[in-house]
Amino acid sequence: MSLRAPYLMFLGDAIDQLAAKTASGVVHWVPDICIGQFRLDGCNADLGLPDMTLEAAAAAGAKTVIVGVANRGGVISEAWAATLVSAIELGFDIASGLHNRLDSVSAIAEAAKTYGRDLVDVRHPTQSFDVASGKKRSGMRLLPVGTDCSVGKMYTALALEKEMKARGMKATFRATGQTGIFIAGDGISVDAVVADFISGATEILSPANDPDHWDLVEGQGSLFHASYAGVSMGLIHGAQPDALVLCHEPTRKHMRGLPEYPIPNLKECLDANEQAARLTNPKATCIGVSINTKDLSDAERDSYLKSVEDELGLPTVDPVTTGVSKLVDNLPVVNS
Amino acid sequence: MSLRAPYLMFLGDAIDQLAAKTASGVVHWVPDICIGQFRLDGCNADLGLPDMTLEAAAAAGAKTVIVGVANRGGVISEAWAATLVSAIELGFDIASGLHNRLDSVSAIAEAAKTYGRDLVDVRHPTQSFDVASGKKRSGMRLLPVGTDCSVGKMYTALALEKEMKARGMKATFRATGQTGIFIAGDGISVDAVVADFISGATEILSPANDPDHWDLVEGQGSLFHASYAGVSMGLIHGAQPDALVLCHEPTRKHMRGLPEYPIPNLKECLDANEQAARLTNPKATCIGVSINTKDLSDAERDSYLKSVEDELGLPTVDPVTTGVSKLVDNLPVVNS
Repeated sequence: MSLRAPYLMFLGDAIDQLAAKTASGVVHWVPDICIGQFRLDGCNADLGLPDMTLEAAAAAGAKTVIVGVANRGGVISEAWAATLVSAIELGFDIASGLHNRLDSVSAIAEAAKTYGRDLVDVRHPTQSFDVASGKKRSGMRLLPVGTDCSVGKMYTALALEKEMKARGMKATFRATGQTGIFIAGDGISVDAVVADFISGATEILSPANDPDHWDLVEGQGSLFHASYAGVSMGLIHGAQPDALVLCHEPTRKHMRGLPEYPIPNLKECLDANEQAARLTNPKATCIGVSINTKDLSDAERDSYLKSVEDELGLPTVDPVTTGVSKLVDNLPVVNS
Repeated sequence: MSLRAPYLMFLGDAIDQLAAKTASGVVHWVPDICIGQFRLDGCNADLGLPDMTLEAAAAAGAKTVIVGVANRGGVISEAWAATLVSAIELGFDIASGLHNRLDSVSAIAEAAKTYGRDLVDVRHPTQSFDVASGKKRSGMRLLPVGTDCSVGKMYTALALEKEMKARGMKATFRATGQTGIFIAGDGISVDAVVADFISGATEILSPANDPDHWDLVEGQGSLFHASYAGVSMGLIHGAQPDALVLCHEPTRKHMRGLPEYPIPNLKECLDANEQAARLTNPKATCIGVSINTKDLSDAERDSYLKSVEDELGLPTVDPVTTGVSKLVDNLPVVNS
């Protein structure tokens, strides 16, 4: 799947800012291609973009309406459908991160067909894949892995891409989830492919490249998450990472959604991920640690980062406050 | 998915005995419900069952036609379609292990609709699943795990079920692949579910049960197979096994389909599987080893089984020639 930029961000009647979390992430990372927001009555979210009518956004060159918002009640309401149909009539493609498919609403499906526009459900891969070959591909790859879900793996990969590009390195973020796909404009929701093809899809996502090119592959889940470890394992094998970055959120009390499951020890988690990665890339090594410190005070943050650095002997950053320079400094050097 | 017995085994124009491997496995394990075979001109496979016309099989009480055969060219030929339509008209359900869906042939889809019969594609789950909860379920579970694919995991699980039932124990085989589903009459092809739901599907497959009841969950793939380890990992976590059995085929030169990948060391494989299993069941322990010795001489077999037993300190059997008594003897004792 591949999306046409620039975007008009559709917020519908989002109940609060959190419901627009995906859209916020997109605006944070690729503000240049988000030219406006469209809000219905009752919308309580704001991306800080100009409010635009569909007509104004079309006139300004927007090509795709991004539905990066949780919908109330889990279904596409009539108000949403009417707006999306109008957008299609004006020439927009629609890209959605909703669980229900855009074409499950017949008015939207019919309009897309009539006007020859694309409906892209980023959670629902349409491509078919082969099983993974396990064959080594040229180019370098980095994969953030986590102690848990939602600890900053995507943020870390994007921050690394930005830093590496700023240094003139060849780097490409490879999206494996909905927000990442909106940001990159393409990608594969690996947790939504048929189980046999997790690794195969990841191989396709991160093809052979220049010897000194780095793919920053978006991580998913955690080897220690009882619901999602299969996805994490398949992603690790398909990505064949040369470098791993361990991501962690230190205030988490238990695994996300699983109150019975404790957060793994950092060293144990690091070792298990290196061991898994070495099946398809014997050189795989953890090159650093990325901590999400949003719930720590400044003093707590500094002392926590230092304690992890001492414990694991690896550069340890908070991508938001310290940046990721220390991680890039610790990447293996490769010649072109 | 659930199948109505007894079965008529459809062999079509199977090119050789190997093309009917799935059907052979079904007849081996549940001969009582396989009342006949149906062969078209040019069929080179034979299950040793009476050849029957559709009418004769219907009169004898057969309820489902089992398509447990690889089709030439990967598509359902016109000759096959005509036979399957006739079967539907006579009141049969059709269950298929083909990659292409039965309802992709419009004549078959229409006949099933007209006559109200079920088309069951065992490779294509239609049920939707939740993500795994990771919650402990009552009852005991055993999962065979492998050094590689196709080393005897299903055979071992079925042999264990048979031995345990013969001893009066409560035991149920839980099928996770196509042959297993035909044998059990139900199950879930876990490698065909959406990746996020591998563990969740396995939890559904093996629900809470009596404290002294054993589920024998069919294993899939290998944690050391670069194409399929994600499925194996999700299956291990969802099964929450109390007992593991390590399955191995000692003449294998490399991982199936992956010439670059060596077979893992037995101890390393055992340790990795125990480690993975202990995430969702801290008591998970490997209770024995099952070796597929079909390519060894009698003398080689005896000495190999002894060498593994000495190396790992675990009862080691060949389910075909020695039976699995030693494995059942080594299960943890549970009270009802």
